[in-house]
Amino acid sequence: MQATLLHGERDIRLEEVPDPKLSSGIDAIVRVTASCVCGSDLWGYRGVAPSRGPKRIGHEFMGVVESVGDRVGNVKVGDFVIAPFYDCDMTCINCRNGFSTSCLHGGWWGADDRDGGFADGGQGEFVRVPHADGSLTVVPGGTPDAALVPHLLTLADVMGTGHHAALSAGVREGSTVVVVGDGAVGLCGVIAAKRLGASRIVAMSRHASRQALARTFGATDIVEERGRDGIERIRELFDGIGPDSVLECVGTEESMNQALRSARPGGQVGFVGVPHQAPTLPLRRMFDTNVGVRGGVAPVRNYIDELLPDVLSGAIQPGLVFDLELPLSEVAEAYAAMDERRAVKVLLRP
Amino acid sequence: MQATLLHGERDIRLEEVPDPKLSSGIDAIVRVTASCVCGSDLWGYRGVAPSRGPKRIGHEFMGVVESVGDRVGNVKVGDFVIAPFYDCDMTCINCRNGFSTSCLHGGWWGADDRDGGFADGGQGEFVRVPHADGSLTVVPGGTPDAALVPHLLTLADVMGTGHHAALSAGVREGSTVVVVGDGAVGLCGVIAAKRLGASRIVAMSRHASRQALARTFGATDIVEERGRDGIERIRELFDGIGPDSVLECVGTEESMNQALRSARPGGQVGFVGVPHQAPTLPLRRMFDTNVGVRGGVAPVRNYIDELLPDVLSGAIQPGLVFDLELPLSEVAEAYAAMDERRAVKVLLRP
Repeated sequence: MQATLLHGERDIRLEEVPDPKLSSGIDAIVRVTASCVCGSDLWGYRGVAPSRGPKRIGHEFMGVVESVGDRVGNVKVGDFVIAPFYDCDMTCINCRNGFSTSCLHGGWWGADDRDGGFADGGQGEFVRVPHADGSLTVVPGGTPDAALVPHLLTLADVMGTGHHAALSAGVREGSTVVVVGDGAVGLCGVIAAKRLGASRIVAMSRHASRQALARTFGATDIVEERGRDGIERIRELFDGIGPDSVLECVGTEESMNQALRSARPGGQVGFVGVPHQAPTLPLRRMFDTNVGVRGGVAPVRNYIDELLPDVLSGAIQPGLVFDLELPLSEVAEAYAAMDERRAVKVLLRP
Repeated sequence: MQATLLHGERDIRLEEVPDPKLSSGIDAIVRVTASCVCGSDLWGYRGVAPSRGPKRIGHEFMGVVESVGDRVGNVKVGDFVIAPFYDCDMTCINCRNGFSTSCLHGGWWGADDRDGGFADGGQGEFVRVPHADGSLTVVPGGTPDAALVPHLLTLADVMGTGHHAALSAGVREGSTVVVVGDGAVGLCGVIAAKRLGASRIVAMSRHASRQALARTFGATDIVEERGRDGIERIRELFDGIGPDSVLECVGTEESMNQALRSARPGGQVGFVGVPHQAPTLPLRRMFDTNVGVRGGVAPVRNYIDELLPDVLSGAIQPGLVFDLELPLSEVAEAYAAMDERRAVKVLLRP
């Protein structure tokens, strides 16, 4: 089959790899009908997170079940399924606690899981899913309308991750919210905050098209300033003290600093931006202001059951974050478009 | 009047200072009937947090109202009152949000408040309270029984601070909890966790007397190990993954590290130990495990109304953390006893 490999800095290739095979009895093979490129894929692509040798890549996909192991019970051949951006069994204690990204048996796409079985990357024709019953969610009603596909695909990562940012930031009915980051996750964070009942949502963005999308998703205000000026502007908007909740959806030291200093005393930062360069948090500042920090790698599998009905009904339309669609054969161009910020997020079809 | 001053490292003196005077119309003078020494007072005493010149000290006190400004409405001459470990107005937006330690007008005992009026230290004969209506809580029923005084006095700081640690750590009905730190605050953290319905509470302590008190307060298990061994032991006790909530009640880098590594994936650290030496938190570890960190300088004034009835009824007995009582004239010995760990916490009477 064809699958995407990262060979090195800005070197992405679609190549022939071995077809996946069932091997454990609890696995499944999925034929990928849609996948996409994640902002976090760009870290490796840009050489910021160096990786050794060619590496399978892609962790957001959906598709049709081609075959299942003999002990798989929740999914069957022909089902249309969504996978989260990782593999998990949904039966271990961490999965049951709501944190399936800490599954004791699962792992990451494009790598061996904790039980030693290989999971293919998502940007390819087929994927072996090691824990089929845990990882895969069947979309009711069979193959969905083409128009629904982008929205469903966000449940694999960005919509669930935005939801995790909002939950981690303690967003509830009536909360005042600031979202740092106007990428796909930040924009989904706006949707999530609105969905959870936030009374006011500020999107920090300097890009007209992203500002417009943020407003479509429920942002009530836009702030273009950054750094000290941005914090000052945010304070002015919220009684001179700042908002209840800040969603940090970037992952740089600068953006976390922005988030931490924007929240009101006793407020909360929910963070989902993958932190790079081993950043740290200033504990003394947190102590003095009682601003909490919580978040991390989002357990999106635990959120799919809650979010899927809202996607199917059209109540939320997170798929609008996709602004480019390409065939898998042009995966290299998909990366380049996102790297050069010509696209927010690219959807790939076979 | 007589008041306590910190002159330098291990140099505490009771000296004659000017009697406080009403000056703002919203202030009160309180005759102190009981005060105490805080673990955080020891940082200055030990020279870890150096201070310039003689400095008034003491921030936990209760007493009888001697006089009030003409615009004070909530307290009157003769009332028996408890003060929190800081001054606050309870009307500004931060106070109303539940974070009176970030009061826009209040300040700290032994220093000028944000409006420029001096607040005496608590370890003295009298204290001028700048925001009397906000800071002071009247104990119903007039002068309390002597036996109740230690318990009431903990509402000025340690009991409210332990409660804040537990709330910040997300403790609720059925939570599994570890408390790092067996000082007065840690022990009050055990009380708070029990009161909030924790199903299992581990106290980390190496001192037989503190272990016994922790058990009296509701600890179900004691762990003596620290560092890597301590984390290992805690994991064993909680399904191999750790507890839901960890209360960090020390304030060193070592204790925070212990706390952060002990919590289960998706768990929460509530921290109230005053952080020294500008420690930082490893954001990447928090990201990978989804362990949140929240806490800080405890808004105990916001908690007094909730905790006072349980103290008055005897449902909780936090005053048991006092294991030495001295006259104010022996304040230097009080500090020495705590510094040398001969006492957990010392109560001072006039």
